[in-house]
Amino acid sequence: MKKRNLFYAQSGGVTPVINASAAGVIEAATEYPARIGKVFAGHNGILGALREELIDTSRETRRAIQGLKNTPGGAFGSCRYKMKSLEENRAEYERLISVFRAHNIGYFLYNGGGDSADTCLKVSQMSAQMGYPIQAIHVPKTIDNDLPLTDNCPGFGSVAKYVAISTREAALDIESMCATSTKVFILEVMGRHAGWIAGASALAANERGDAPHLILFPEIAFDQRRFLNKVTQSVERYGYCVVVASEGASTADGRLLSDQGERDAFGHAQLGGLAPLLAGMIKEHLGYKYHWAVADYLQRAARHVASQTDLDQAISLGRAAVKLAMEGANAVMPTVERRSNKPYRWRIGTAPLHKVANREKKMPRRFITKDGFGVTAAGRAYFEPLIAGEAYPNYDRGMPRYTRLKKMLVPKRCEPWEE
Amino acid sequence: MKKRNLFYAQSGGVTPVINASAAGVIEAATEYPARIGKVFAGHNGILGALREELIDTSRETRRAIQGLKNTPGGAFGSCRYKMKSLEENRAEYERLISVFRAHNIGYFLYNGGGDSADTCLKVSQMSAQMGYPIQAIHVPKTIDNDLPLTDNCPGFGSVAKYVAISTREAALDIESMCATSTKVFILEVMGRHAGWIAGASALAANERGDAPHLILFPEIAFDQRRFLNKVTQSVERYGYCVVVASEGASTADGRLLSDQGERDAFGHAQLGGLAPLLAGMIKEHLGYKYHWAVADYLQRAARHVASQTDLDQAISLGRAAVKLAMEGANAVMPTVERRSNKPYRWRIGTAPLHKVANREKKMPRRFITKDGFGVTAAGRAYFEPLIAGEAYPNYDRGMPRYTRLKKMLVPKRCEPWEE
Repeated sequence: MKKRNLFYAQSGGVTPVINASAAGVIEAATEYPARIGKVFAGHNGILGALREELIDTSRETRRAIQGLKNTPGGAFGSCRYKMKSLEENRAEYERLISVFRAHNIGYFLYNGGGDSADTCLKVSQMSAQMGYPIQAIHVPKTIDNDLPLTDNCPGFGSVAKYVAISTREAALDIESMCATSTKVFILEVMGRHAGWIAGASALAANERGDAPHLILFPEIAFDQRRFLNKVTQSVERYGYCVVVASEGASTADGRLLSDQGERDAFGHAQLGGLAPLLAGMIKEHLGYKYHWAVADYLQRAARHVASQTDLDQAISLGRAAVKLAMEGANAVMPTVERRSNKPYRWRIGTAPLHKVANREKKMPRRFITKDGFGVTAAGRAYFEPLIAGEAYPNYDRGMPRYTRLKKMLVPKRCEPWEE
Repeated sequence: MKKRNLFYAQSGGVTPVINASAAGVIEAATEYPARIGKVFAGHNGILGALREELIDTSRETRRAIQGLKNTPGGAFGSCRYKMKSLEENRAEYERLISVFRAHNIGYFLYNGGGDSADTCLKVSQMSAQMGYPIQAIHVPKTIDNDLPLTDNCPGFGSVAKYVAISTREAALDIESMCATSTKVFILEVMGRHAGWIAGASALAANERGDAPHLILFPEIAFDQRRFLNKVTQSVERYGYCVVVASEGASTADGRLLSDQGERDAFGHAQLGGLAPLLAGMIKEHLGYKYHWAVADYLQRAARHVASQTDLDQAISLGRAAVKLAMEGANAVMPTVERRSNKPYRWRIGTAPLHKVANREKKMPRRFITKDGFGVTAAGRAYFEPLIAGEAYPNYDRGMPRYTRLKKMLVPKRCEPWEE
């Protein structure tokens, strides 16, 4: 069998462990020296392929590749660049295949979410049509945890851990101050279409009355009266109320709560910030003193407190993608299959890309309590193993030692790409 | 010498290590069994003394007291309750002294910031006037790091570490996305009057060009044109810009930037949120895509990544306060004295309370770069040792095991207090 190179790229929003998948891919590829030549990584994701900016990972030290397992962000650069459909822009796919052909690339490993799964599928199809068949394997990644057919998505477990810990910590803070000061704390978390991240905050609670007292899910239509009642109830019962709100919380008509047409002093639409909006509601109707936090990138980059389970799975899925390629697979994605909750047992499975692409997995209703503000025992049982274990990075003078790569590019062989 | 009880209370905003000082006090007190009876802790700070709600710390297990060293928040409850001046409300001080007398309390250890140092001083003075002299010792604590006469304040080092780590992590995130997406990231941090916390974010940078590219200090008047120029410069040079803004950033006329009279959709003053305000400015004038985060309580409660140095000092200062009491000291505060930067060497000193009360220590100008947007080498040398070492809590099923106390109250002996 001919020796061919492997192309790997990171796509979309990054995670605390996407680089760990990259390390898994690169390390596994070295185990097939007769069949895999070099691993090229796209500089800034798929743009690196279009622009023929291919990073030669063999120029990085072994230590740097190891270091990727502890480094958040996307070490090769990621991008938000959605490939157009074949009808709209066939030329883009043709360009990709030409670059792959010029560099003897036979394996396309794409590390991303739902959109990327779609791109990955199209690359597989187009390359066959163009007579240069490429095995396209999708490596799952998304903190949103919304890919179907896998138990969970790498990145999610670490964000879930960060959010659950932050909720518990902030709750201890407000609990100790609430006698004379702040009564309501609101934490806004990511998850535009699915409430997985918000839901994971439920792990902060051990006993009845523990925070979070109220979770807002995109899956449950927001009702201001019911929300304010629940806040009041919690303050009266426990002295304070901790709210965890998914940025995707929406009203019954499907509009984002954070985009209700309000204008700020400059006349702009409200600049994101569901948390300050909810705080305003609470102040106006209940008069409680509040604090709010918006974790934003902090949650998505918090490698300092990553989940060991998440890290292990991120590495394993990267390795599994290479193995699948070696087994001749095409247009598939390695998945995590959960075998049991306690103890948590999982193995690697596979899913065909046409069943993954462009589908969103929302929180099932049975994971959300009847009142729509909490997580059921079944939900907790789902979340709990995903945050298990602490994968700490190394530190140097009080700061985590994160890896920065050399990112040496391979000499170009194609015409420049007209963007 | 007569055996007398010790009263300890937590005051004002809590920190990741205020409970470690409490543990230091409680453990040290047991070393003087002939002179110190019980340690009573105020339930919700000084209110616990006024209301005669005294927590009997001897009813807690040794393990729980040990656990305090790893637990954020204020385990006995804190409060924002500023004692009035003697002229305005002498009765309040008299009540305190009566409760102390009724419970044979001879030592008053107050764990707080500048306001609390003032209260502590007054208790010492009033008790002498009332013929029931109490030794009042202030245990320093404030994440704002603005107490004078001490190298730093317990709580600050851990918040500094959290903010520096979060800045480095978020910077890796935006750096990997900036080719096609977000160009500016703004992190708002605490510190209403002094820029210490914002300044500590400078430790995120290792090399020229590293984030943070721009820090906004309360000590430097905000100038929109200069700010926007610096953002543009950073985006053009490095592809992105990370801004760390102290909530206390103000214009030249001394008004908080976050309180410039803007009104939101409800007609309220802008609900906190300097970060969204800066984001609005950047969008309006530069058009860059941005993200912003407001860490709020998350930074103040982040015990999961506390500084070992900070923890050690918090415990030591609690112990030192007891030792000072045993040495007959009164109206003083144990301090941290820095002996050298590299290696960091420190010892416990003392400061008289009249020189501590109601004074704020701002960032010295020599710690801030000439352009007002960065931290000098001298500033870095100051900050660096304070974040050294990782004091991790124990974990249980993926979550930090934080201690909750029984908080058993001592039977009351006084008349109810009329609030």
